[in-house]
Amino acid sequence: MMFKINDNYLKLPGSYLFSTIGKKVNAFTEANPDKPIIRLGIGDVTQPLAPAIIDSLHNAVDEMANAETFHGYAPDLGYEFLRSAIAKNDYQARGCDIAADEVFISDGAKCDSGNIQEIFSLDNKIAVCDPVYPVYVDTNVMAGRTGIYNAATEMWSNVIYMPCTAETNFAPELPKETPDIIYLCFPNNPTGSTLTKSQLQEWIDYANKAGAVIIYDAAYEAYITEEDVPHTIYECEGARSCAIELRSFSKNAGFTGVRLGATIIPKDLKSGDVTLHSLWARRHGTKYNGAPYIVQRAGEAVYSEEGKAQLKKQVAYYMNNAKVIYEGLKDAGYKVSGGVNAPYIWLQTPKGMTSWEFFDYLLENANVVGTPGSGFGPSGEGYFRLTAFGSYENTVEAIERIKRKG
Amino acid sequence: MMFKINDNYLKLPGSYLFSTIGKKVNAFTEANPDKPIIRLGIGDVTQPLAPAIIDSLHNAVDEMANAETFHGYAPDLGYEFLRSAIAKNDYQARGCDIAADEVFISDGAKCDSGNIQEIFSLDNKIAVCDPVYPVYVDTNVMAGRTGIYNAATEMWSNVIYMPCTAETNFAPELPKETPDIIYLCFPNNPTGSTLTKSQLQEWIDYANKAGAVIIYDAAYEAYITEEDVPHTIYECEGARSCAIELRSFSKNAGFTGVRLGATIIPKDLKSGDVTLHSLWARRHGTKYNGAPYIVQRAGEAVYSEEGKAQLKKQVAYYMNNAKVIYEGLKDAGYKVSGGVNAPYIWLQTPKGMTSWEFFDYLLENANVVGTPGSGFGPSGEGYFRLTAFGSYENTVEAIERIKRKG
Repeated sequence: MMFKINDNYLKLPGSYLFSTIGKKVNAFTEANPDKPIIRLGIGDVTQPLAPAIIDSLHNAVDEMANAETFHGYAPDLGYEFLRSAIAKNDYQARGCDIAADEVFISDGAKCDSGNIQEIFSLDNKIAVCDPVYPVYVDTNVMAGRTGIYNAATEMWSNVIYMPCTAETNFAPELPKETPDIIYLCFPNNPTGSTLTKSQLQEWIDYANKAGAVIIYDAAYEAYITEEDVPHTIYECEGARSCAIELRSFSKNAGFTGVRLGATIIPKDLKSGDVTLHSLWARRHGTKYNGAPYIVQRAGEAVYSEEGKAQLKKQVAYYMNNAKVIYEGLKDAGYKVSGGVNAPYIWLQTPKGMTSWEFFDYLLENANVVGTPGSGFGPSGEGYFRLTAFGSYENTVEAIERIKRKG
Repeated sequence: MMFKINDNYLKLPGSYLFSTIGKKVNAFTEANPDKPIIRLGIGDVTQPLAPAIIDSLHNAVDEMANAETFHGYAPDLGYEFLRSAIAKNDYQARGCDIAADEVFISDGAKCDSGNIQEIFSLDNKIAVCDPVYPVYVDTNVMAGRTGIYNAATEMWSNVIYMPCTAETNFAPELPKETPDIIYLCFPNNPTGSTLTKSQLQEWIDYANKAGAVIIYDAAYEAYITEEDVPHTIYECEGARSCAIELRSFSKNAGFTGVRLGATIIPKDLKSGDVTLHSLWARRHGTKYNGAPYIVQRAGEAVYSEEGKAQLKKQVAYYMNNAKVIYEGLKDAGYKVSGGVNAPYIWLQTPKGMTSWEFFDYLLENANVVGTPGSGFGPSGEGYFRLTAFGSYENTVEAIERIKRKG
């Protein structure tokens, strides 16, 4: 007799993509201390927090220094001031019918995208784009929802994969088998592709008809530059009865190290009489204790007039990098996509190299770190992701190096 | 065909204890706006953050304002500076063999105590003290580990309850049936009771022999005033092979609204060849994205010489309140325990009232909010919890009111 572990964890092949990259980069740096690395791999921001956010953080810290203005436990689901700011600015201002009490504040979209599966039955079958952000699949593996792993195909027996390659214009096609839960992320990580409003409407109609839930990751919406690309799934009709939306402050406000996110669950989204809103509220109340007060105040500053203006510039800075990468690689003869509505550029590896071969090649020859497409799923093989989150100077230098040696 | 929810959530009886209290208090306040309430219910702190922590927060915010010192994604498991400070001050300084890389930083002990069950098999059987912090049981219910709820006994069929009442001196006895996972919290929430080092050693020996894991919640260790009460389970021999420890910054440093915690998993703790350390690391890497940089710097300041001195005073302030409550109630003829090594005073309800009857009675007659013992489990019936986390003035006033009218 002895306690038993959750052996679903043991089914996970190897370690998490970015851990592996980190180890390879550390090994290279130790062996080549004279070769400065430029990192365009992990989607981590590099610009400092905007002044309006810094001011807000300092003010909130000062509030914590006095008993009269001190804040202890936050409301489970988030402070009203932040929930209202999100509902008003991200939804109502776009004509979307989302109320403040349908917004749940969290410490980031990674946590929410990993935790959201907990409110669903283990019998449910998920569908994911391929390639895809690894957290969606891995957290379902850990919960025991994905069946058996086939090392040859790198696929799970109980997951529906929707290939997104050059052949499909990097958009998923409606699956032949009906899933229960559909993960969609647009603008897409890793490919940088988007769906138009009418394309997304097809998914809503499909999900409502099939009785499926869409988990829509909108972490990159601030990077949209084209007119016809929806900033939220609730721009489409019928989304209130089939879609959960995940929002992040990491990329639109540089909060990767600050930690703030939000999940939207409309009260119309039900299984029988049970709202998913009530289940997520229960999870938050039982397994979570709120985002820090000072961080929620920083989130509020994102929606101030000053904050909006400053962040518009910050996003434009990164999108200028995206342009540098996109056009530089195109000039150099690479096949590239993304980069127009997203901070990610997706390129086809040259000369038939695998994704990891190209990773090693780029690291060794150009001292540039990117992310191998195969790390995002089998259909990512033969592709490679570069991010626009470096500094302008580093981005220009990286592209020069790739042109020279890559 | 339609997606299915995790129907374990529907088995949870009623809503979370503190939500219910909140609703009752709000209703009373709306009906009686002239009667000022004193809240000694939820264990939420009221004193402002210590100056050393405020300084550290401001400094860290300033770092986030410059590209050269900006911090993006934190290391999954926490910054080295904080992991080392914890290992050194909370463990090595007490002669306990815990290394920095056995410390996992999180956004709080509530999250950790709710999430930790995920790395164990759903077949495992848990044992809990009764009364107990509701999160331990509720998160196991949500995972599907607890069997069927009996509304009459308020017990789950697949949970081992260890009564802690006046009859057992508020300490659990070794269970007759062998559990896989044992939750222990000392100093105890809600009873304020403790185990001596030799009593805790019995549990270690039992767990090692039975092949059980102890999840030891040490959130209140800073309140220990007596010599023979261990501050960490690793003061006992053999704990490295059977115990996980949860630490909180909420109560020793007033971080309820700042959010910071730590979980210790010694690398000796294994199931076969698999270390629980590796499973928790995988969970952190996949479902979590690190505590905010500025908050981890605030945590570091807790261990500075200045911080230690300031927090010693803060804890003494609350413990003086505990004394006021304990002695005031004792003088008034109540049967009280706790309050010596913990910020909680546990009292027996007078005149055969149920816990909720006494809650309503105290709210209506003394306008004081406490926590009904039955909210912590069936053996909590007939008891009531008051916390020492109010201001001194409010605490004195509350006890006066209880003496007069309660």
